[in-house]
Amino acid sequence: MASAEADALVISSDPLHPANLIPELCRSFYQLGWVTGTGGGICIRTGDKVYIAPSGVQKERIEPTHIFVLPYPQPPPSPHTDRVFLRRPTSNLKESACTPLFWNSFDLRNAGSCIHTHSQHAVMATLLWTGPVFTISHQVRGTRLLVMSTSAVLRFPSQMIKGVRIAGTGTALSYLDTLEIPIIENTPNEEDLKDSMAEAMVKYPNAAAVLVRRHGVYVWGNDWEKAKTQTECLDYLFEIGVKMKLAGLLTVLNE
Amino acid sequence: MASAEADALVISSDPLHPANLIPELCRSFYQLGWVTGTGGGICIRTGDKVYIAPSGVQKERIEPTHIFVLPYPQPPPSPHTDRVFLRRPTSNLKESACTPLFWNSFDLRNAGSCIHTHSQHAVMATLLWTGPVFTISHQVRGTRLLVMSTSAVLRFPSQMIKGVRIAGTGTALSYLDTLEIPIIENTPNEEDLKDSMAEAMVKYPNAAAVLVRRHGVYVWGNDWEKAKTQTECLDYLFEIGVKMKLAGLLTVLNE
Amino acid sequence: MASAEADALVISSDPLHPANLIPELCRSFYQLGWVTGTGGGICIRTGDKVYIAPSGVQKERIEPTHIFVLPYPQPPPSPHTDRVFLRRPTSNLKESACTPLFWNSFDLRNAGSCIHTHSQHAVMATLLWTGPVFTISHQVRGTRLLVMSTSAVLRFPSQMIKGVRIAGTGTALSYLDTLEIPIIENTPNEEDLKDSMAEAMVKYPNAAAVLVRRHGVYVWGNDWEKAKTQTECLDYLFEIGVKMKLAGLLTVLNE
Amino acid sequence: MASAEADALVISSDPLHPANLIPELCRSFYQLGWVTGTGGGICIRTGDKVYIAPSGVQKERIEPTHIFVLPYPQPPPSPHTDRVFLRRPTSNLKESACTPLFWNSFDLRNAGSCIHTHSQHAVMATLLWTGPVFTISHQVRGTRLLVMSTSAVLRFPSQMIKGVRIAGTGTALSYLDTLEIPIIENTPNEEDLKDSMAEAMVKYPNAAAVLVRRHGVYVWGNDWEKAKTQTECLDYLFEIGVKMKLAGLLTVLNE
Repeated sequence: MASAEADALVISSDPLHPANLIPELCRSFYQLGWVTGTGGGICIRTGDKVYIAPSGVQKERIEPTHIFVLPYPQPPPSPHTDRVFLRRPTSNLKESACTPLFWNSFDLRNAGSCIHTHSQHAVMATLLWTGPVFTISHQVRGTRLLVMSTSAVLRFPSQMIKGVRIAGTGTALSYLDTLEIPIIENTPNEEDLKDSMAEAMVKYPNAAAVLVRRHGVYVWGNDWEKAKTQTECLDYLFEIGVKMKLAGLLTVLNE
Repeated sequence: MASAEADALVISSDPLHPANLIPELCRSFYQLGWVTGTGGGICIRTGDKVYIAPSGVQKERIEPTHIFVLPYPQPPPSPHTDRVFLRRPTSNLKESACTPLFWNSFDLRNAGSCIHTHSQHAVMATLLWTGPVFTISHQVRGTRLLVMSTSAVLRFPSQMIKGVRIAGTGTALSYLDTLEIPIIENTPNEEDLKDSMAEAMVKYPNAAAVLVRRHGVYVWGNDWEKAKTQTECLDYLFEIGVKMKLAGLLTVLNE
Repeated sequence: MASAEADALVISSDPLHPANLIPELCRSFYQLGWVTGTGGGICIRTGDKVYIAPSGVQKERIEPTHIFVLPYPQPPPSPHTDRVFLRRPTSNLKESACTPLFWNSFDLRNAGSCIHTHSQHAVMATLLWTGPVFTISHQVRGTRLLVMSTSAVLRFPSQMIKGVRIAGTGTALSYLDTLEIPIIENTPNEEDLKDSMAEAMVKYPNAAAVLVRRHGVYVWGNDWEKAKTQTECLDYLFEIGVKMKLAGLLTVLNE
Repeated sequence: MASAEADALVISSDPLHPANLIPELCRSFYQLGWVTGTGGGICIRTGDKVYIAPSGVQKERIEPTHIFVLPYPQPPPSPHTDRVFLRRPTSNLKESACTPLFWNSFDLRNAGSCIHTHSQHAVMATLLWTGPVFTISHQVRGTRLLVMSTSAVLRFPSQMIKGVRIAGTGTALSYLDTLEIPIIENTPNEEDLKDSMAEAMVKYPNAAAVLVRRHGVYVWGNDWEKAKTQTECLDYLFEIGVKMKLAGLLTVLNE
């Protein structure tokens, strides 16, 4: 499993190789408060290979040799195994609990990378946008804020919306477009979010991310640069949306 | 276009060469939250050459070879081209959408550098100072706060005002001076801000910056040090102005 | 006392040796605001040796040679000395005032590492959860928030609870479990917290940490990784708990 | 003036030499938001020599060769010069406007170092503690908060008080002691603060710092370590004091 051939999948002198990028990006995400306490993570898919950091480890201290590599697509499940790997680390590291959720982004959006954060901006957004159905209208430029209890639509104009792409992998939104991010409820086991996340992605085909109540957010893109850029833009929007709400700004705009 | 001669414009062992400084400063601005999600940017003009970072890229990962170089002033527009370049990167990088706005700072203020941030402090300031005409008087030392709906004047005493220069390129303000920063409305295409930004700069000839509602701020100076210093001072003033407003401090001062 | 033999206890080329790790981790904790002003600290126990940083020094500038090494368990107290050391630094550094509190984590939980922070999130939590007995019910998934005046129990669902272990050294909590962190009152001398901390640890046998009112928090784990991870998770929970409380979110959930 | 002999005063391979320490500490203070926009600064006195950073420069980019060196005490003023220097940088750098204020800390407290920050926590504290005479009683452990209009006394128990020394240069305060920090009004020219700062230091002989309304704080100590430690402790106390006030915590305690 961790043969020399398998290890070659994660050894490269190219700093942009996924096995080198994932540790570097995780260190940066740690500084942003997105992956503290071993939470959060990132996967990168290059064609038929998926690179994923292990579960339950300090994300800012990951080494390339800690990376799991999986084939994409996965072969049909067999009675012997849940999941097939091209490479597993030798140490007793566990595969990421996010794996089935990352797979949603590949299967439903053909994404090349998916980022999961526990950002407090994302979590506070899921706590302040609680529904059942909440509407704010008459905002500048005719946009609206609409929130539902099990899935939420945030609508307010901000330059940062232009950094988000339709469905996460399409063309960029314009300043006048509406940004829609569904919110799903958390479950005790991260794997169990797979179905409700997929459901939200189907119901909101233009959504570039899925928020998980009291937990965090999943954001994807065509490649790691676009996934990272969109995660930054959405995190910015969650942060300023929370600030606006706490400052009573949206209520004023509702009048 | 990216000939050896053109490339020589961005290759230097001097860390203070604009092609080296722009990547370094962008990394620093990223840490401050000013240019996340590929937003924001900086240009440096040294006499007849203007150095600008490309559009839509991760600002904290720019390399000197990514820099565009343009002549200043630009030759008259021809039917063949909108803009003339001394150097374009070989990769398929797009020129900055901020270019016409940076040009305003050269043409109207003779600036040597202009910085554009998406700082949340700037954006929150544009959301809390909403007008139509709002006046706060009887503040300490007789200064006043005055805000209009399409352009705003912030007036409150703070030591950091002394770091801002009259018109951005003149002598430093004193502690007792009034700081005036106009706010213009955002547009779907960044280029379309050119005229309203120019209008605000003419209407407020002493302004060292222009805020853009729900978007960010443009700040200029005689050189990159002065542009950076003023951006820091203004960002500090936006941040503490927002804190004061949310703490009810300005309202109290209005009595 | 600081003989060559004793010095060998803190000299190693292994970056994961406790004498190298403690300075590195303290620099990182300083960046997080946990150990500014010489406050806070960390100890690591490897079998029968305990490594502790000195008291009253700038935690972000500690060198391996500043580390104290103590035997565990300590020999019975003699009339000549309060505490036995395997190594003391040559310079006039004082032993950590946290030593008896760190010892609680060894004696009562068999911990391998204990972290003490002055994080403002922890302190604000001790100020906002003030009791005497305060209950919030009907929260999502039936969890409850319960606070008592001299010891507090915080209960609200969050993904980050999964990063905390039962008693700090047991199995991980599930998303549906209740997180209990007792709060004890501060004393003028840090050493005098020993008994009330031990009492709280006995009264709350599942608690992974003890908060100290107007002071900070002590968090332990089986080793330094698990102690650090749990400190990050708890700090995250204190921070978002304070944000929720200030946003009126818990009050709403109480209805 | 900048002869080889004078330059030797700022050239050293010792990282703890004041000419090396000042640039390093200023970079660290910049990260903390204390000296952005060229504001703030630090001086270090070693016996009869005072090392000071220049005025109006980017504090995070200072080099050892930018440092001014002055004799302490200064010779009596002559008709030819205001101030005597042992070394001035060759470039056209201006001496620090803080010089007379730093001198207060030497003359009145025999300090070895003085730090000046524009920290927003300090400034917000000067805006929220506005007097005329404001008293909060019945706090935990019998401490009180007392604020006057032109000088303020902050009193609330916090572990971080133990990091502050009586008069800034004496023995450490205990957890039960009262922390007193006078607030003086700002003036257009920083030099003009000299007399009111000295007056406040005489009136509050135990104060370890002086706050300047809408401006920042001056903190001193026996050496740079103690000045830095106390600046961190006080900044922590200003920050959490502001948080407590905005959370309504002090008002509740007043009842």
